Amino acid sequence: MTVTHVDPIEAAAASPAEARARYRDGLEVPTTGWATGFTQANMVMLPKEWAFDMLLFGQRNPQPVPLLDVTDPGATTTVLAPGADLRTDLPRYRVWRDGELVDEPSDVVDLWRDDLVTFFIGCSFSFESALLDAGVPVRNIEQGRNVSMYRTNRDCRSAGRLSGPLVVSMRPVPAELVVTAVQVTGRMPQVHGAPVHVGSPESLGIADLSRPDFGDAVESQPGDVPVFWACGVTPQAALMASRPPFAITHAPGYMLVTDVPDATYRLP
Amino acid sequence: MTVTHVDPIEAAAASPAEARARYRDGLEVPTTGWATGFTQANMVMLPKEWAFDMLLFGQRNPQPVPLLDVTDPGATTTVLAPGADLRTDLPRYRVWRDGELVDEPSDVVDLWRDDLVTFFIGCSFSFESALLDAGVPVRNIEQGRNVSMYRTNRDCRSAGRLSGPLVVSMRPVPAELVVTAVQVTGRMPQVHGAPVHVGSPESLGIADLSRPDFGDAVESQPGDVPVFWACGVTPQAALMASRPPFAITHAPGYMLVTDVPDATYRLP
Repeated sequence: MTVTHVDPIEAAAASPAEARARYRDGLEVPTTGWATGFTQANMVMLPKEWAFDMLLFGQRNPQPVPLLDVTDPGATTTVLAPGADLRTDLPRYRVWRDGELVDEPSDVVDLWRDDLVTFFIGCSFSFESALLDAGVPVRNIEQGRNVSMYRTNRDCRSAGRLSGPLVVSMRPVPAELVVTAVQVTGRMPQVHGAPVHVGSPESLGIADLSRPDFGDAVESQPGDVPVFWACGVTPQAALMASRPPFAITHAPGYMLVTDVPDATYRLP
Repeated sequence: MTVTHVDPIEAAAASPAEARARYRDGLEVPTTGWATGFTQANMVMLPKEWAFDMLLFGQRNPQPVPLLDVTDPGATTTVLAPGADLRTDLPRYRVWRDGELVDEPSDVVDLWRDDLVTFFIGCSFSFESALLDAGVPVRNIEQGRNVSMYRTNRDCRSAGRLSGPLVVSMRPVPAELVVTAVQVTGRMPQVHGAPVHVGSPESLGIADLSRPDFGDAVESQPGDVPVFWACGVTPQAALMASRPPFAITHAPGYMLVTDVPDATYRLP
């Protein structure tokens, strides 16, 4: 993997199409902070033979798996980002065989199959800007880290052959701003919506907040309360648990940058 | 069909389970006005081989086709109404072969197949009570008629083999209450949400409001404006246009009465 210095101001000011062109040309960086104001999306590609189960899994678990778009089999484009080629325009992919992560390439052109259906799932990056707008600090952004994510002891509703645990992201929120955080994100159901839990990691089966299952550890400040949101990595946990023969996803943090303004997913 | 006198006060006071028991025992009446305060749902049953297309049709057209639950293949129950038998507990069904309506039985026990997937779709009955609560008169209720429904000149986003026109319901709303009607229903996206159009039937390709394609003609009062909402009959129009070999639906107005309180689908 190439390490490339990217100017954060330049990244934030890039249009979604400019950001995707950079990734297509080989830039492999997390998408946080890029193309400010535009929605980023989680991605899962599965053969048509598994697509009904995945679509049903999303329908039954709308909080962790809010489906923003689902393509026709073999389509390499999405209405969320006209002009994007889904095989090349994310900065990093993950390839799964029988539920095992086998590769993290920067494109999937050679792996492409005409029976692949692509699912785009809302991402909590969209509500982080809404939290900031409402005066709620976002510690993972302050600390320049990926958000902390954890497997929980709660099962998703299964769908055919797909099942797995609810995965949550956690953000430490100052206690006096927890209500604001609930209200702001509750108005964004297509990007995970209101928190699923406030305050007690152990009731979700999380033993140690400093050891997340995905992403980075994020430090709480004095007076912060841990707040948990349903997380778009949940489908990846379902792939690991349910072991379909073949799947492609985005790499965590390396999302599709869409042309859809974040405000589209805010209810009045 | 048996004509049975039902006391409207008794019908309104019935629990959802009591209402379903009456229909199961053979009562064939429209469900409007029954089990006040509980959600009623449109229903489509399709063989598994068509289920992915239907599920995708709902994902791509959430305003006319808001999916409240989708069953496993062969399941005769739904989380929306524990204890209900989906083959018997609606008062009237429609049977479709190759896109043609061939029968309207009061149960589908003899037609049941183990590959049928059942889709439940939100219904505008749920927002009519919210409109009344907000002081917006609902003319079809005042006039004791089924709501007026029309095919429009707008196409739904197609999904695999399924395509068809957007179907809308129309309610005449006093001009000074149109904003209230938009705001009230806009907070209920799972039961069709905000109107798709206000004021101009011709821009939707509707030539004559007095001749609806489904349901009854409803009379406007002086000062009323026609307001159009996406309608759960849209999937039936897609079945007629796309001609799957076999399908079962509810008969328009003869819905599944669920155990879910209407308030569940109201956003704060």
